[in-house]
Amino acid sequence: MAKLSKNQLERYPIYLKYFKELEAEGIGEISSPRIADKLGFSQEQVRKDLQAVSNQPGRPKRGRRVSQLIDALETFLGYRKPASAILIGVGHLGGALLNYPAFDQMGLKIQAGFDSDPAKAGTSIGGRPVYPMNELPKRMKELGAQIAVITVPSDQAQKAIDLAVSAGAKGIWNFAPGQFKVPEGVVVETVNLASSLAVLGHRMNEEAD
Amino acid sequence: MAKLSKNQLERYPIYLKYFKELEAEGIGEISSPRIADKLGFSQEQVRKDLQAVSNQPGRPKRGRRVSQLIDALETFLGYRKPASAILIGVGHLGGALLNYPAFDQMGLKIQAGFDSDPAKAGTSIGGRPVYPMNELPKRMKELGAQIAVITVPSDQAQKAIDLAVSAGAKGIWNFAPGQFKVPEGVVVETVNLASSLAVLGHRMNEEAD
Repeated sequence: MAKLSKNQLERYPIYLKYFKELEAEGIGEISSPRIADKLGFSQEQVRKDLQAVSNQPGRPKRGRRVSQLIDALETFLGYRKPASAILIGVGHLGGALLNYPAFDQMGLKIQAGFDSDPAKAGTSIGGRPVYPMNELPKRMKELGAQIAVITVPSDQAQKAIDLAVSAGAKGIWNFAPGQFKVPEGVVVETVNLASSLAVLGHRMNEEAD
Repeated sequence: MAKLSKNQLERYPIYLKYFKELEAEGIGEISSPRIADKLGFSQEQVRKDLQAVSNQPGRPKRGRRVSQLIDALETFLGYRKPASAILIGVGHLGGALLNYPAFDQMGLKIQAGFDSDPAKAGTSIGGRPVYPMNELPKRMKELGAQIAVITVPSDQAQKAIDLAVSAGAKGIWNFAPGQFKVPEGVVVETVNLASSLAVLGHRMNEEAD
């Protein structure tokens, strides 16, 4: 498969959401130009994006089948088989993510939290247990978790990432601002809220000029 | 000022964080190559990025002054004068964001939450009051809030955005998956957690192949 760009990958959940809305409205077919128009992407982009995940043959002058598109995207995105994950750092943000039921529908099953605060061990949030940090290696293996969600403060993030990687994590979903090191073969995807705010603020200033 | 790319804007908080670490270690000067090496950006990128926000003259063979870089970035990012904001949708995620003290240091001062559930009105989270939706227009004006943080479910997001815009919002920091419409002059920046997970999952599959 051709290497997909980050921007392209980021569009797939947006397509999927739209196709599910169509399905809920009883619409069975949809054309690329209509998708492009609705979502604000170019027609060329839509065709290329969908071709990369669905082998539904092109049918000139006809639409693509919505059910097949949903099927292809859910499979591609791994939503049919959520990945097992744990979360490190059960503070404000970590607690919210642990308690956020929608991740199950986004291919991520966060099974437990870990925190260095002994007072948090033994509690549970949203039905997910919180364990002390020293149980992480054992628990990650038991849970078959390959993804660690990192919600500790920045200055503790590298240590948390190192611990998760040594316990077998192959993917790090990181919410701590900064650049962190992982060995070859381990993937880090960072959600940088400060960066997102920087974009918002700057664009607002441009509009106000 | 030249138009800055989204990727470039997203890098500024990462620089700032690094420079603050240097300052905390007592390091007064830093060279572009060293910054590039440390953060994993190209030297050309670092030079271009910093030139766009700081008029500190280039000093060949010498470093840039860390304190001046911090000053320039904090001013550029608006951290010295946080923007006033409100939040709509005090569920799991909204409650966490309302309760997240670090936004104050990222240029965003979330002053109040709004929720359509009458049971939530009159409560407070992290010291921020929660009001019923019908008070939004009045309260937004009182608070001088120009940014609305949207943490309602997707199917309610367009309505929440419309309400905020009609009450004067110029910026929407959106956590609801999907594409939403705003009038000209209003900026939407979306944090799409599903898209971020799609990138993580796909990169992990590439590594496993």
